[in-house]
This record gives sequence, C-alpha cells and structure tokens, in this order.
Amino acid sequence: MTQSSGNGRSGVLALAGGVGGAKLAVGLARILNPNALTIVVNTGDDETFYGLHISPDIDTVTYSLAGLANPDTGWGFAGDTFNALETLKTLGADAWFGLGDHDLALHLRRTDMLRSGMTLSEVTLDLARRMGVRHPVIPMSDEPVRTIIKSTDGEMSFQEYFVHRRSEPEVIGLTFEGADSANASPVFQRALENVEAIVFCPSNPFLSVDPILALPDVREMIVASDVPRVIVSPIIGGRAVKGPAARIFETFAHKPPSALAVAEHYEGMATHFVMDNEDAASRGAVEALGYQVLVTETLMIEDTHKIALSTAVCKMAGVSI
Amino acid sequence: MTQSSGNGRSGVLALAGGVGGAKLAVGLARILNPNALTIVVNTGDDETFYGLHISPDIDTVTYSLAGLANPDTGWGFAGDTFNALETLKTLGADAWFGLGDHDLALHLRRTDMLRSGMTLSEVTLDLARRMGVRHPVIPMSDEPVRTIIKSTDGEMSFQEYFVHRRSEPEVIGLTFEGADSANASPVFQRALENVEAIVFCPSNPFLSVDPILALPDVREMIVASDVPRVIVSPIIGGRAVKGPAARIFETFAHKPPSALAVAEHYEGMATHFVMDNEDAASRGAVEALGYQVLVTETLMIEDTHKIALSTAVCKMAGVSI
Repeated sequence: MTQSSGNGRSGVLALAGGVGGAKLAVGLARILNPNALTIVVNTGDDETFYGLHISPDIDTVTYSLAGLANPDTGWGFAGDTFNALETLKTLGADAWFGLGDHDLALHLRRTDMLRSGMTLSEVTLDLARRMGVRHPVIPMSDEPVRTIIKSTDGEMSFQEYFVHRRSEPEVIGLTFEGADSANASPVFQRALENVEAIVFCPSNPFLSVDPILALPDVREMIVASDVPRVIVSPIIGGRAVKGPAARIFETFAHKPPSALAVAEHYEGMATHFVMDNEDAASRGAVEALGYQVLVTETLMIEDTHKIALSTAVCKMAGVSI
Repeated sequence: MTQSSGNGRSGVLALAGGVGGAKLAVGLARILNPNALTIVVNTGDDETFYGLHISPDIDTVTYSLAGLANPDTGWGFAGDTFNALETLKTLGADAWFGLGDHDLALHLRRTDMLRSGMTLSEVTLDLARRMGVRHPVIPMSDEPVRTIIKSTDGEMSFQEYFVHRRSEPEVIGLTFEGADSANASPVFQRALENVEAIVFCPSNPFLSVDPILALPDVREMIVASDVPRVIVSPIIGGRAVKGPAARIFETFAHKPPSALAVAEHYEGMATHFVMDNEDAASRGAVEALGYQVLVTETLMIEDTHKIALSTAVCKMAGVSI
C-alpha cells in the first residue's frame, strides 16, 4: 500500500552511496513498503575491472538489503571465497581490486546483461530482485559518470584512490566526468517529481552524494522541491564512521569535519538535519542555516539502530510508516 | 636444442582436440624440447558463455601440460570450487555450462586480453606460459570457427551438443562455420612448413581434428607434405576411450567404429598409423590403405603410458628424442 501525503506525492527517495547509505537504506526498507521507497545510488565509483562492469555502491546497497553483505566489512558477499582472484593474479592480471567468487558472478552477469542491451537500471532491478530485494535500487544514471580524484599524487579514478591507494593521497579536486551529459535514470527522475520526502543518507557528501547532485537538473529539482528533505550527517563527533570523509573536509573543503560542516556543505538543498547526540552543541549553528534539527543517536551498528534512525527520519519528514 | 632432420625441417607438429589429444601432448612434451614441439589445438568448440570467450580444448591441453587438470575428468582445474556458478544460477544465468572459480579466472583474463586487441594465439601463449607450460600451445586459428552439429534434434553448437545434451542427439551433419575464411594461425602455418613430422593425436576425428583440417590450405599442405605423418587411433577395440567418436562413426559415417574406420577417414592424409594391440587383426587392412602400421599399447592412463606412446610415435616418424 502506498502512503500518500495531501499533495498527491507519496513515498521516500533515499540518496545513497556505499556502506553508510546502505545502512540507512536497510532501516528505511524495514519500515516502508517497496512502493513507498526508492533508493537511488551513486555510480560515480563504477569502474571496469577484469573486463567487468563493477558498481560498488549499488552492490553494497543491494547485498545489504538482501542480507548477503559481509558483516565485517559492510561490502562484498558474506563468506565469499577468492579462488578466481588468486588465479587472476597468477595469470598476470593487475589484481588489486579484490573480488570474491560469488561477487564475481554478479559482475559477470551484470556485464553480460548490459552487453545484451539492457540499461543499468533494468539490470540492477533484475539482479536485486533475484537476490530477494523487494525495494527498488536504482542507479543514479544509466549513462557513465566517473568520479575523478585530483590529488597531490595526480589524477586517479575513485577506486584507484579508495582501494588501491587506501584513500592516502590528499584530495585537492573532484570531477564527475560525464555528469554534464548523463541523464538521471528514469525512475530517479520520476521519484524526484513524485515523492513526499527526500533523504540524504549518511554517505560521503563529496564522493557519494555530490556525484548524484551533479547530474543535470537534479540539484535544481531538489532545491526547487517543496517536500521535506532530510540530511543525516555522516560525521559524528568530528569523525567519519567509515571512509575518508573527515580528511576530505580538512584537505579539500578546508574546514574541520563536523556536523555543522556537513550542514554547510548541503546549505540550501535540504530542510531538515539529523545530527548525533555527540554533536548537540552545534544544534544552534545548524538551525541558523535554516534547517529543522533533530539530535539523536545516529551510529548504526545493529538493525535496531537502522530502524530507529529511519523511523525518526520519516517522522521528522512527516512520512507515515 | 632443436632436433633437425636432413631436409632442414625440425620438430613435431601435434594436432590435438581435448582430453585424448592432451594426453599424447603431455607425453610428447615430456620427451621433446619446447622448440621441438608445436601443439595446435582445435578451436571449433570455442563458445561464449556468460560473456566470456571459452576455449575448452585449448584449456584442456594447457591444464594438462601444466599439471593442473582435474585428474578425474581430464578437463577443468583440479580441486576447483563452483561458487561463482552457484551465484550465476541464482542471478538467472542459463548456467548449464559448468565453470569452476579458478577456471573462470582464466576465461575472464582471456576475454579481457582479447578485447584489448591481442590475438588468440598471443593470449594462449601468454596464459600457458604463466601456468608454467614451456611448449607452445597454439589455437588452430585466430579467427572464429564454430563447429555446428546438425542432429536429429536440429542444429546446435558443439557445447550445446556435447555438454548440454550429453552427446545424445544423433549427428547427421557437421559444419565448421567460418572455416572457409579463417586463416590457420601464424605459428601453425610456420609449423606446417617447417616440422619434420606431423602427429594426429587420438582425438575425435570428426569433431576435434576435422575442424583443423577444414581451414584453408591446411589439408592440402598436409597431403602435399613429404614428412612422416602419424595417426594415433582414438578408437580401441571398437570403442572410443572418451566421448562420442564411436557413435558418430555409426550414425554419421555409417560404419562400425574401428581402427580401420579411422584409417579410412584419414586416407591420403598420413603415412603412418598407430593402433592398439586389441586391433591387431585389422593391421593388414590398414596397411592396404598405404599406411606403415605400428601395433602397440595405446591406452594412456598414467604418464608412463603417455611417454611410451609418444616415444613410439617419434621413433616411427624418425624424430630423434
């Protein structure tokens, strides 16, 4: 059953990157019907390895929703083996991008389906459904967008920076190659026009959410939208729960990582802001930017945390669950 | 060191299909230097599965030479796991073509290298070398040739017939699609001009060796060659050691499977014929076709059998080892 607000709009659009986004997506999926939630995922991190189209953020979200994600890392397939990778190394492949055997099958299947002419949206929905995922997981675009990191060590792709170089190079510039000419995927476009609330999941603002916002018209449509738009801060107590977000605030945005810095980053894009209890002191400063603020526990370890935070987010946005 | 006969020609060219060919190739490789043996392998069985270029006969020969072949089946990677295949099935792939995880890596790497512009010969040599194979394993052609089986159940590819349908359909016709316009691979062409002996490994005459002979000029060059050409019969006592050769003699060639039938099939192509002790009774009939005949033990179970048979073949052909 579709929940519907008075203006004819219904459902929630969640914008997500990898692990942090996947956690909130799992919570939202536990409290919202499949037709009341659209999860749009960053594809700026997509890359071709071993000839296969790999969509790391889509996979992390899909595996998480399917209950198949490796609980230790948050990404990859739980209990996977790495036999193919071992042989790839023997055979001379530059095998720094780790792929488990089960995981590999997903990339193989995706690549084969894309080559047959299906769009990334169609492929993603089909594969997610086959993994038992009932909520729509949608790539931000069916056209290629690639996040290019300009660093003190030169230009590199996201995976080169994040996986191969372990986020060590200092980020001094970001380009979302192809974003100008790529279109938001059809389901994403429809969601932007029809949902009753938009949620910015606690993903890296620069590397996971900004590529989504860089697509033509997306930022403008969100800004012009009159529905509640809720940001969940990925920075807690000055630290990123996972990944390089905190360092990028320092070296690229030249400000200390904080909930306030996140609020400033998204200023004008959203109406509501969720920050952790640890950051309560900056509540006033964030409210001064025009946000309605909720201070609560935002660290998501167990599913109960994911559900509690999602429930608070929906309540704040006036979405009935 | 290259062995050389008086006419300036040197080395042995072995024509091979899958398991039977691989066994003799292993024996030949144990007694001949890498520069004295060229193993040319059928690629009519090649096919694309899951978007990957698969060369079953090349892999069987390469794995066998590398000591990596599954000893129970004669093909595939010893001790392989099948985790990717399991997931491929979950994800809706038509997964009747079994691929282990280590095996998959080989196909991935091959496909990626081919897509980068390398020829199948270059890729095959590189991958074999990385698996520790010192003797050149060469695809019969760098261009696609596909064996199409016309059967009482309709037309199908070799793998569809052999793997999916377990060789059950009755073969009534064979086409080597693309063979007219494909060229023998460069190393194969050079070997045809330069070797001092040609060995027809005990592979399926119709499905493994005939595709090689169907390439432009190959049959003619072999017939016109004045070097010893030795056939090792794949039929022992009226039975094929492995595979559908015996049935195909009956249903397609309309004669009982026998060493004599093999000799008739290759009539005019070769000078020497090796048959099993079991078939000694037909020695005279095969000699009457113009062959010099060796009757010996031809069943290859252990490496000692492979070496003994290879030694006998080389001796018969006047190749010093």
